[in-house]
Amino acid sequence: MANEKKVQSITDIEVDFAQWYTDVCRKAELVEYASVKGFTILRPYGYAIWENMQSIMDAEFKKTGHVNVAMPVLIPESLLKRAPECAWVTRGGNEKLEERLAFRPTSETMFCDHWANILQSYRELPMLYNQWCSVIRWEKTTRPFLRSREFWWQEGHTIHETAEEAIRETEQQLNCYADFYENVLAIPVVKGRKTDKEKFAGAEATYTVECMMKDRKALQGATSHYFGDKFSRAYDVTFTGRDNTIQYPHQTSWGSTTRMIGAVIMTHGDNNGLVLPPKIAPIQVLVLPIAQHKAGVLEGAGALRDRLKAAGLRVKMDDSDNSMGWKCAEYEMKGVPLRVECGPRDLENGQCVLVRRYDGEKIVCPLEDLEQTVKAQLELIHKGMYDKARENLLSHTYEAHSLEEAKELQSKNGGFIKTMWCGDVECEKRMKDEAGMSSRCMPLEQEDLDDVCPICGKPAKKMIYWGVAY
Amino acid sequence: MANEKKVQSITDIEVDFAQWYTDVCRKAELVEYASVKGFTILRPYGYAIWENMQSIMDAEFKKTGHVNVAMPVLIPESLLKRAPECAWVTRGGNEKLEERLAFRPTSETMFCDHWANILQSYRELPMLYNQWCSVIRWEKTTRPFLRSREFWWQEGHTIHETAEEAIRETEQQLNCYADFYENVLAIPVVKGRKTDKEKFAGAEATYTVECMMKDRKALQGATSHYFGDKFSRAYDVTFTGRDNTIQYPHQTSWGSTTRMIGAVIMTHGDNNGLVLPPKIAPIQVLVLPIAQHKAGVLEGAGALRDRLKAAGLRVKMDDSDNSMGWKCAEYEMKGVPLRVECGPRDLENGQCVLVRRYDGEKIVCPLEDLEQTVKAQLELIHKGMYDKARENLLSHTYEAHSLEEAKELQSKNGGFIKTMWCGDVECEKRMKDEAGMSSRCMPLEQEDLDDVCPICGKPAKKMIYWGVAY
Repeated sequence: MANEKKVQSITDIEVDFAQWYTDVCRKAELVEYASVKGFTILRPYGYAIWENMQSIMDAEFKKTGHVNVAMPVLIPESLLKRAPECAWVTRGGNEKLEERLAFRPTSETMFCDHWANILQSYRELPMLYNQWCSVIRWEKTTRPFLRSREFWWQEGHTIHETAEEAIRETEQQLNCYADFYENVLAIPVVKGRKTDKEKFAGAEATYTVECMMKDRKALQGATSHYFGDKFSRAYDVTFTGRDNTIQYPHQTSWGSTTRMIGAVIMTHGDNNGLVLPPKIAPIQVLVLPIAQHKAGVLEGAGALRDRLKAAGLRVKMDDSDNSMGWKCAEYEMKGVPLRVECGPRDLENGQCVLVRRYDGEKIVCPLEDLEQTVKAQLELIHKGMYDKARENLLSHTYEAHSLEEAKELQSKNGGFIKTMWCGDVECEKRMKDEAGMSSRCMPLEQEDLDDVCPICGKPAKKMIYWGVAY
Repeated sequence: MANEKKVQSITDIEVDFAQWYTDVCRKAELVEYASVKGFTILRPYGYAIWENMQSIMDAEFKKTGHVNVAMPVLIPESLLKRAPECAWVTRGGNEKLEERLAFRPTSETMFCDHWANILQSYRELPMLYNQWCSVIRWEKTTRPFLRSREFWWQEGHTIHETAEEAIRETEQQLNCYADFYENVLAIPVVKGRKTDKEKFAGAEATYTVECMMKDRKALQGATSHYFGDKFSRAYDVTFTGRDNTIQYPHQTSWGSTTRMIGAVIMTHGDNNGLVLPPKIAPIQVLVLPIAQHKAGVLEGAGALRDRLKAAGLRVKMDDSDNSMGWKCAEYEMKGVPLRVECGPRDLENGQCVLVRRYDGEKIVCPLEDLEQTVKAQLELIHKGMYDKARENLLSHTYEAHSLEEAKELQSKNGGFIKTMWCGDVECEKRMKDEAGMSSRCMPLEQEDLDDVCPICGKPAKKMIYWGVAY
């Protein structure tokens, strides 16, 4: 075809995982670099994935009573107790500002400032707020979705009458993320608590869902923090309690970002490009007419598309004059979970052929069973993708009983190394220095591997996961 | 009740419209001022209105093939041909930036910059993009929703192969806004074209929907711009055309903002507070049990709530121990379109009472007809609100045949003054200087009022609307 875009080739995933990742991000048209250094553009296909994630997650948040709000994007320097790597606004119009304003790196301070203004009575608690927005962190090195000066996220912020209630919220939202990863993104996670070294500054406790990418590196999927009343006291957020005394509410925050798109790419992708879990795929089913110039094929394929659309699926038919080879490569690159092929012979036989993206499996489907079979296949695809990812996670989680063993296992296999730990930050630092691994989390599901910390020999307190992380 | 918030009183709408407006914004808990000067917080109730607007409008955009994207929020100074009243980022982390970055005031430049990178062939056209985000304009004086340093909006940006197609898009999106105002917000609009003086800088033509508030001042509801190939040429956006020559695409942009919430308040509100059109109301129906301590009332009212929810409506039941008086005042302040009252006597008689917010009308409703009657009432409410607003618009649109008459009509009645116009900017300036009115638009539906311009006496070219605008 004269005007056909050339079939896009990407770096081999086994040869250079990092380059493969960047290739997929761009060739699948998820992101493009912007003229602004360190910033990216979320292109329509990438944004559509983010929209699907948002709409599913937002509905889950609302089921448990959370409401959305919008806070100002600029935060006065005086409100930020710490000044992290921020973008600083110093001029408005032609005036120099009296106080510098930071582009929000996160909004705890703004929420506290707002609550200090409006909160009065225990009757108004809990306040279960969430915000969808972008934030800026002035990173030195950037990679699409994983580390970018601006990224898109949701940040939940809640205040509660009691510590118990806030802790329950922290756990509930951690579970919400874990369920989202497993049921929507088809990515298994390890739920656990961060060490003091790795927790969010100012949090009493940080919980995390950790996942493992195809290169066996770890990725922090989302975090949920319990603050106690630390921020409330710092920002003077108070309420009149049931006993008529002035009290400080207990606070949580929890966030997940467009980094989840990076996790999907690196968990499921392959040498043909992106592989999307059905629930977030902008196109769930591609209908591909074969020998479309032949009588009846386009009408037949169009009818299948219409039936699948009517069944509530996100469907696209490509009847362009590009070659079959190009079309297959293009939608494989874009990770469309299921392709429905239908040619003159198929229609004659009252059937079509379903081709699964993630494992290439072909299924002959009688036309009368179309909707039902396609829906069942999409569920099987989700399950198949999840099982494959789980197999990767489990088969690359190793048990070590000495620092030397941990180091060797990591350098040989990558993955998660689990050991016992004394709880001392010095041992955590030694693991980092000598084996190149950070602590990922202390899993909620503990095992008893040893009596002592394999790093220092002191009594063990917790089982902990180590890994090389994104 | 000991802990009952006191019934909130607001300024009389007839006494001080501006103060009434601000009171409603705050007492209905739509916005709160932030610690950052000139910035506001969209609180849960205000944000829920914006979410409803977004979801309806976004679905309309998608029906006509538009897709969402996300562009970087910071724009290099060199890309902005003009530097309007921006917030300037001059430092990232601890470094001074080599080039200042503006917080986007609007994103035409970023879209052009991106298109210059990715566009290749006419086959990729049109590109029909939209972005939901916040923007900053460094305003001196601010008012909730109407003028705020940060506001939330959607900005559509499209490029097309031909001028005709781009012009059609500009018109289509103008109509989309007009339909949204009338069918969703229950606000009638005048569709028209802006004069060269009032159009968007750089646009070939700007179209607008203009509405009239209860104080008879004009409010620009949304705008749709046709750029020709001006921006394409400036940013070197090109494509290979059907004839294999290099061509410049034709561009449009169109936007609507959280200002629409201000329009709703000032079109429909009254001395009891907000009055919301049913389609965007976060709570469409309030179920209010009367004498709720009596046997069976709470169960009976709860059953009505459940039935209405099951019918797909947004429903809330207030069974708190606040007084009936407080509850009625509270939900009237929040503009809930319909209240369903149900006490022991009602339940005995197999009925309930519906009370309409916008006109106070009460309707006795047999319980077996509940869903059907409530839905019908919500439609009647929309229509009734629209008709009332239309009556305000029509009865305060005046025809003038001299500058003197225009001036007198405006100072006496406010509203829209329509006259003929020669097309000369000098006459426009005279109207502004002498009668305090800016041109609102040249309506698409023209009338022939005079042969000459009433300001200068030269031959008339267009009928034009004048007004005092927000």
